[in-house]
Amino acid sequence: MAEAGSKQEVYVGVDMGGTKVLAGVFDTQLRLIGTEKVSTKSERGVEAVLERINRVVRDAVDECDLTMKQVKGIGIGAPGAVDPESGKVLFAPNLKWTDVPLKKDLEKLLEVPVFIENDCNVCALGVFERQLKGRFKHVVGIFIGTGIGAGIILDGKLFSGFNRTAGEIGHMVIDASSELKCGCGNKGCFEALSSRTAIFKKLKDEVKKGEKTVLTEMLGDDLADMRSGDLRKAIRKNDKLVTKVVEDAAYYTGIAVANIINVLNPEAIVLGGGVIDALEDEMMSIITEVAKDYAMQGTFKGVEIIAANDADNVGIVGAAVLAKRESK
Amino acid sequence: MAEAGSKQEVYVGVDMGGTKVLAGVFDTQLRLIGTEKVSTKSERGVEAVLERINRVVRDAVDECDLTMKQVKGIGIGAPGAVDPESGKVLFAPNLKWTDVPLKKDLEKLLEVPVFIENDCNVCALGVFERQLKGRFKHVVGIFIGTGIGAGIILDGKLFSGFNRTAGEIGHMVIDASSELKCGCGNKGCFEALSSRTAIFKKLKDEVKKGEKTVLTEMLGDDLADMRSGDLRKAIRKNDKLVTKVVEDAAYYTGIAVANIINVLNPEAIVLGGGVIDALEDEMMSIITEVAKDYAMQGTFKGVEIIAANDADNVGIVGAAVLAKRESK
Repeated sequence: MAEAGSKQEVYVGVDMGGTKVLAGVFDTQLRLIGTEKVSTKSERGVEAVLERINRVVRDAVDECDLTMKQVKGIGIGAPGAVDPESGKVLFAPNLKWTDVPLKKDLEKLLEVPVFIENDCNVCALGVFERQLKGRFKHVVGIFIGTGIGAGIILDGKLFSGFNRTAGEIGHMVIDASSELKCGCGNKGCFEALSSRTAIFKKLKDEVKKGEKTVLTEMLGDDLADMRSGDLRKAIRKNDKLVTKVVEDAAYYTGIAVANIINVLNPEAIVLGGGVIDALEDEMMSIITEVAKDYAMQGTFKGVEIIAANDADNVGIVGAAVLAKRESK
Repeated sequence: MAEAGSKQEVYVGVDMGGTKVLAGVFDTQLRLIGTEKVSTKSERGVEAVLERINRVVRDAVDECDLTMKQVKGIGIGAPGAVDPESGKVLFAPNLKWTDVPLKKDLEKLLEVPVFIENDCNVCALGVFERQLKGRFKHVVGIFIGTGIGAGIILDGKLFSGFNRTAGEIGHMVIDASSELKCGCGNKGCFEALSSRTAIFKKLKDEVKKGEKTVLTEMLGDDLADMRSGDLRKAIRKNDKLVTKVVEDAAYYTGIAVANIINVLNPEAIVLGGGVIDALEDEMMSIITEVAKDYAMQGTFKGVEIIAANDADNVGIVGAAVLAKRESK
């Protein structure tokens, strides 16, 4: 903050989720200066959400004792299919948005160049540039939280496919015999087996069936307000149920990683998101071992499986990377 | 053959499999002039196989009343991980090959420029240029025969990943609960559910269990020398067992196609290989319907699922396309 108020130039990265919008202010070296948060309130409609993004960005900049004139560019990661060229969110089921000209509308409100991308692409870009320092050609970033998504980088560039929906890895079926339902309506999707939603549902179901776990002592019988960090605490208390459920989620994640290695053969797979951030020690070794088992001969050689650093901020960091890349 | 013996220039495409090597001679418009075939005999070692490729190419050219001087380039699709730049087959489990300098060795024998690629990549390239006439940007070709492989074309170019093994789609796990073993040692792989090997094994197992089918009338109780075409005949005779087994294979293929659409979101998926060639009418509508069910909202829009034409020759056509592309 030493330069606050000076002629310092900054970028703003915005992580736009279904429940909250996080804005981070970064210097030109992409060091985080400060953040602000607001709830999304998508139920109030598109205009209200745009106004809230406008507000949280302006508040974040102001909190850092900077002015909007010092902002060179704003990057936004939005949940859904995004066309960076037209600047439109094509569709975002979580927000109930279709064809929203996010870039144009926000540039009107914020009077600064705005660049948009899919949220998982933005996260993958952030990890690729900041953590991996661009040292790989082909990288897939898999982000496990409430849902599961991925960003695909091929030859150093984001790949988003024909309808801008590439990376919907959470809906890759890996257990067609499974009875576990996914939010998408199908069964046996990766997201129905390894997301935070899937893990929490399994735990709640088992508790209802009478299974014992320290989680009920920590959170009550209904496991209210459970967080990924609670699972880590329970495992460190040698809780058998939580250990089993988290190990199963890691096992299926390992299969999903092997599938990606077999199909796309990237140099590196980075795992991030809230679940990995909270349970890295518990999950990463299982994921790597299972992936190695299921990857074909020769495909796994030299491929790195890496946990994302700084997972809480990966969304805003990636969005700032996008802003810096595109502002040039 | 009107121009035979003239100064006509030609390309040779070679489809090199685990059991046979097929060579096709093509004019500069990539019209097929003639073919020759020889068994691979990989058990005799690398040198013997190279000599056999040399022989089948020279024989094919001679049969067309042409000379080797008229051959502008030879393309070869080889089964395994291939590095087109170094001209090496990195590893090919079916042939028990590691680091074979196929391009260099064959150029010595054939005295014509040789270009090599992975066999599924070559097939995808052939379909892309000849059947689709390059009208898509991103295409995945899935080839279902004894095994299952894929070639991936992104932005009009072959994508083979870090270890040159991208497209090992046959070893994508789609039913982790399945007890069906794959040749790779794992269970629940796409290849263990939908390949010709998987279909034949299932039929033989069911016959052993006492299930009735017209196949036993056609081929005897041990279903000896069964071919994909026999399945088509049985289905057209309303054979319940064969219908069910083929429909199941199509169902799992539909899931695999949806997985690829969700992960990579190509514009088109082309299905080829001996199984699709023989059972296109029986399988394609199921595959398309299931893929649509399992693809995420928005990802499927405008995506085409197409059966490969001329599936018997797709390997040599693709290899000739490679030769023509690279000889320039």
